[in-house]
Amino acid sequence: MAHVARIRFLGTAAAVPTTSRGLPCVCIEREGGLLVFDVGEGAQAAFARAGLGWNRETAIFVSHLHGDHCLGLPGLIQTMSMQGRSRPLAIYGPGGTAEFVTANLRMLRFSPPFELAVRDVWEGTIHHTKDYAVSACRADHTIPALSYLFREADRPGRFHPERARALGVPEGPLWKELQRGREVQGVTGTVRPGDVLGSGRPGVSVGYSGDTRPTAGLERFFAGCDHLIFDSTFAEEHSGRAGATGHSTAAGAAALARNAGVGHLILTHFSARYADDAAPLAEARRIHHTVTAAADQMSIEV
Amino acid sequence: MAHVARIRFLGTAAAVPTTSRGLPCVCIEREGGLLVFDVGEGAQAAFARAGLGWNRETAIFVSHLHGDHCLGLPGLIQTMSMQGRSRPLAIYGPGGTAEFVTANLRMLRFSPPFELAVRDVWEGTIHHTKDYAVSACRADHTIPALSYLFREADRPGRFHPERARALGVPEGPLWKELQRGREVQGVTGTVRPGDVLGSGRPGVSVGYSGDTRPTAGLERFFAGCDHLIFDSTFAEEHSGRAGATGHSTAAGAAALARNAGVGHLILTHFSARYADDAAPLAEARRIHHTVTAAADQMSIEV
Repeated sequence: MAHVARIRFLGTAAAVPTTSRGLPCVCIEREGGLLVFDVGEGAQAAFARAGLGWNRETAIFVSHLHGDHCLGLPGLIQTMSMQGRSRPLAIYGPGGTAEFVTANLRMLRFSPPFELAVRDVWEGTIHHTKDYAVSACRADHTIPALSYLFREADRPGRFHPERARALGVPEGPLWKELQRGREVQGVTGTVRPGDVLGSGRPGVSVGYSGDTRPTAGLERFFAGCDHLIFDSTFAEEHSGRAGATGHSTAAGAAALARNAGVGHLILTHFSARYADDAAPLAEARRIHHTVTAAADQMSIEV
Repeated sequence: MAHVARIRFLGTAAAVPTTSRGLPCVCIEREGGLLVFDVGEGAQAAFARAGLGWNRETAIFVSHLHGDHCLGLPGLIQTMSMQGRSRPLAIYGPGGTAEFVTANLRMLRFSPPFELAVRDVWEGTIHHTKDYAVSACRADHTIPALSYLFREADRPGRFHPERARALGVPEGPLWKELQRGREVQGVTGTVRPGDVLGSGRPGVSVGYSGDTRPTAGLERFFAGCDHLIFDSTFAEEHSGRAGATGHSTAAGAAALARNAGVGHLILTHFSARYADDAAPLAEARRIHHTVTAAADQMSIEV
């Protein structure tokens, strides 16, 4: 797996910030660009601490409109503006997200100097470039909520010109065809892409659950994903409370990750009632092979 | 001056938070109650760090509806709710404050379990108890903005029963009269309150400017106040910028404090462009006798 991206945790608390955890915000940094999942209050300060910069190509994905997941948006937009942002900013979230952002900017008499596109979305592929796509799936929380999946396109292997020449394919349009994965006719017969390309690099996939119960739908949605960042609000001793409040336990997240064939499970959104993440982490590790507990300003190369 | 109150600075930055300064929020703690001036993003985290508690008798005063002065309100209300607040909460601010709070609670589908009264106010006495009053005066910023003045009632001196008895005033209704500051007729003649009461304790006054240019109106409003917390966004080298953006320089704040006969001037709302507060502090001290630069989590007994 190529190291083309980095996951950076800016806030890993549930509902209420603690002295060591801020409200939810997770970034994927990728070739200069940023994908941001949830923007809790204080995210702009965590952005500054992480030195992420204010003018990167950025798309923001809001899981749901509970305050701890979105109240950092207006301040982030304002600070981006004051720090001279000029690039457009895209924001996606479930129904009500556009109203939340535009109503606040109106009430605060603030108009960003860059292009701001806020779109209410639901399930499906909601954002893509030639290199990756982000899709959404309904989560199971107390209000409409989305989980997101970032998936890079597989990258073809490196092209070896010397091999193409040796097989009688002259430089020119035929090389492009081979690089695109198509067979061509060389001077000495059929040449397959595999004859001239190194082994391909599979794209990385990263899932983000937001606040949710574990569900069969999310198990399918996150099937086989490399890194899954999942709601781990409660330890098993409070599993009843997890059910009542539309959250997952660490063990519930681990069972979903195991069943979905997830590689690396990353627990986040820890309730402030736990002094540390030891109990949820131990419970999850009994069920899934690879589990990490997220911490503020933690960074993982993927 | 009796030590009955404490000013606590929770956020002392202008516009954009820095690693050492959060967005504007200042509290006066007084006999268990809290008066809060501005609630920038991150105020709830600063509240928790200061250990202020979530269920104190509290009134909040918003200077104006720029995001850095009010975006912490919805999160503070939510966290107070989640931490079990039961007492009513009063919020005051210029026109639009009630809409800002209620629209956000509606969009975030949040209804606090305590009584919340948000009132748009303008000049005059806007909040009072038997012990103190808070009044508002128009400030001079780029949008409608208020400055606030907290003023304790003067407290009578302590009553000395032995003196009253010695002067021939028996315990009963006449003691109450003396305690209320009225003369009474004792067995041996007229007794004055000063004969039986210790020296009075003058009430403390604390002013909070919010974002503003120094004005003649504010000089009158803050006349003689004991402690004045004033906009000090800029040092003299950027005085043009202060004028253009509706802010004060440290020297401008000091000139107002001197002209108004203020006791102690406290500079706050420092632009992130200055590495420290040395320049504005030095400039202000050349003009006014007693000047402090506020810092996050600084606390002053008054």
